[in-house]
Amino acid sequence: MNKPLQDIVVLDLSRVLAGPFCTMILSDLGAEIIKVEHPQKGDDSRDYGPFLHNRSLYFLSINHGKKSISLNLKKPQGRELLLELIKQCDVLVENFRPGTMEKFNLGYDILQLINPQMIYAAVSGFGHSGPDSQKPAYDILVQARGGIMSITGWQNIAPTRVGMSLGDITASLFTAIGINAALYQREKTGLGQKIDVAMLDGQIAILENALVRYQAEGISPQPLGNRHPTISPFQAYKASDYYFVIGVGNDNLWNTFCKALEMPELISDSRFCNNRLRTDNIDALNFILEPFFASKPASYWLELMEKSGIPCSSINDIESVMQDPQLLARNMFVEVKEPVAGTVKIAGNPIKMSSFQDSSVREPAPEIGEHNKEIYCKRLGLSEDYLTELQKAGVI
Amino acid sequence: MNKPLQDIVVLDLSRVLAGPFCTMILSDLGAEIIKVEHPQKGDDSRDYGPFLHNRSLYFLSINHGKKSISLNLKKPQGRELLLELIKQCDVLVENFRPGTMEKFNLGYDILQLINPQMIYAAVSGFGHSGPDSQKPAYDILVQARGGIMSITGWQNIAPTRVGMSLGDITASLFTAIGINAALYQREKTGLGQKIDVAMLDGQIAILENALVRYQAEGISPQPLGNRHPTISPFQAYKASDYYFVIGVGNDNLWNTFCKALEMPELISDSRFCNNRLRTDNIDALNFILEPFFASKPASYWLELMEKSGIPCSSINDIESVMQDPQLLARNMFVEVKEPVAGTVKIAGNPIKMSSFQDSSVREPAPEIGEHNKEIYCKRLGLSEDYLTELQKAGVI
Repeated sequence: MNKPLQDIVVLDLSRVLAGPFCTMILSDLGAEIIKVEHPQKGDDSRDYGPFLHNRSLYFLSINHGKKSISLNLKKPQGRELLLELIKQCDVLVENFRPGTMEKFNLGYDILQLINPQMIYAAVSGFGHSGPDSQKPAYDILVQARGGIMSITGWQNIAPTRVGMSLGDITASLFTAIGINAALYQREKTGLGQKIDVAMLDGQIAILENALVRYQAEGISPQPLGNRHPTISPFQAYKASDYYFVIGVGNDNLWNTFCKALEMPELISDSRFCNNRLRTDNIDALNFILEPFFASKPASYWLELMEKSGIPCSSINDIESVMQDPQLLARNMFVEVKEPVAGTVKIAGNPIKMSSFQDSSVREPAPEIGEHNKEIYCKRLGLSEDYLTELQKAGVI
Repeated sequence: MNKPLQDIVVLDLSRVLAGPFCTMILSDLGAEIIKVEHPQKGDDSRDYGPFLHNRSLYFLSINHGKKSISLNLKKPQGRELLLELIKQCDVLVENFRPGTMEKFNLGYDILQLINPQMIYAAVSGFGHSGPDSQKPAYDILVQARGGIMSITGWQNIAPTRVGMSLGDITASLFTAIGINAALYQREKTGLGQKIDVAMLDGQIAILENALVRYQAEGISPQPLGNRHPTISPFQAYKASDYYFVIGVGNDNLWNTFCKALEMPELISDSRFCNNRLRTDNIDALNFILEPFFASKPASYWLELMEKSGIPCSSINDIESVMQDPQLLARNMFVEVKEPVAGTVKIAGNPIKMSSFQDSSVREPAPEIGEHNKEIYCKRLGLSEDYLTELQKAGVI
């Protein structure tokens, strides 16, 4: 078999992260991505660090393997060209502020008439409905407004951001689910549809048990550092040298854990005899465990836990992550040969499907308009002379 | 139109979070989910808090609307029944430790012969290949091993866990993408396939720019509290009363920001004249901004920013989140009428698709085996007498 989306063409009007990360996933699944960029400015994230030999690795790491065409949507000819492309594509992805496509006279009501089979996916900060729909959004805003910052980190220290752009990337993933589901539905109905994913909505969807904890307890859940709110012991402990983590997820594991630590008396301790009690009495439990673990190095405890089958791990920095034999065996670091910056490793595709063998190499990210000839001449049939004219007129 | 997956039947052998969260998404998109549980023990997470009137709201919040059948896969008759169900389903989801299905003599090589159209999705801690494939895993382990804990939180404080189960939920989302892509592909090829998603792989895929920052800078990225690593100012600041966040994502916004704060001199300050310099000189910038913001309450700054179009937000706790007018307008809190616990609000579906209007109500989560009659008698054609026999024999 081949890649699942190998016959799919995606017109990608999106910039920065939430949209481009979504189309990167579609690209990894085989879709052809035509990235539409402003002729002069291009994607904002071309200016985001980190840089290597003055090339944005940020941009590279989410736009590899895409094709780029330049197009100024504000010019009437630009709009016309986009409509021609829309006739030929299966999916359109945009992450403008809601209303922007309508300002360009390119709202879904119009595009739907031109290509009723097309799936129109919009990712935005707050969504295409509701009182705050039009407000500007960035990841930090939805992490703050969506509650995740209130349950991450430590009490009595400043609010903590999740160390990656969780607001954007979660929305990307939900959008990719919606697009694939809509592609499946189109096979049945012959029709496309509009998908509207808000970064803020995505944050609510992944809060896990925080919403129900609030309802059960009547107070907002607080940040818990590195422990799980309802499973115990399930957290990081400090050994004599480093921190390490353990996950004692059920009562069987608890029994094994107590025996491994040579503390059989804990098994019969009524404060700890099931998960619920261990969570209620976590302070008492940690009063015992913390000094105990502090007595020997992390390597000692990890070896002991491994032997007994207790889920455990060291806490890796990025350098260690990139050398992890399991991740290397899973092809989770793929190479991009960037013409200027050289060979760079980026994350591989975590969706391992038996229909195709994933490559360990990705194509570089495109220059602005690098694929103008391929798309405008070969696909739309424009002449090269006309292309030069469009370029002079600032349309492409 | 109808829901995209309305004709899809999912056999769900999964427990706890990574699998059930995935099938919850498929359910929200219209699929029928048949949850297979051990007759006595059921899903582990039935014992996970928070509890209300002794009902696990944890279980409720990810298993609403599913059907449950009881089945002991270790009994030969149990295995036979499962094979009968497999003939009738489109998707199977399991999150056992790799090798478990093979132990039950239910590996994909066998199931594929019985139903070649079926999509087999396995979510596991470390994946179905590689040296650590068989190791036990929980969320805290992959958060630790996958690097996210090393870039979340604060330097010189203990490692910090993201306040929800990011390891599980990310894997759920990638699996849901894979399943939908495979359903689309099946329309072309007539064939199912195996999807193998590892929680650890998923963590790498969402690290965003951390991998390339390590390569550009030669040292592992450190936790940055609440600021963005490569965009500035893009973080939380403390006003005289509360923290609030701002996101100054490009140079235009920076100019507007300086004018709004009546600090035009910052615009021409060569240390801050583009995003790259502002990030390099963030300490100098915060040396100016922090005392400035500390002089007035958060409400003052938020109003000022809003007026000027600077992306900004208060930092909400879960109570405020659940009253957010934008989220209410987006139907992001849906109701479950739980027979014992009463009405509980859970997160709605963030994938808004024009093909269907999402309801604001969800069905309760099932009891163990609640749908035995419906599935075993109506779907498989077994007699009620035979069902009683199976029950006595501990098969269901």
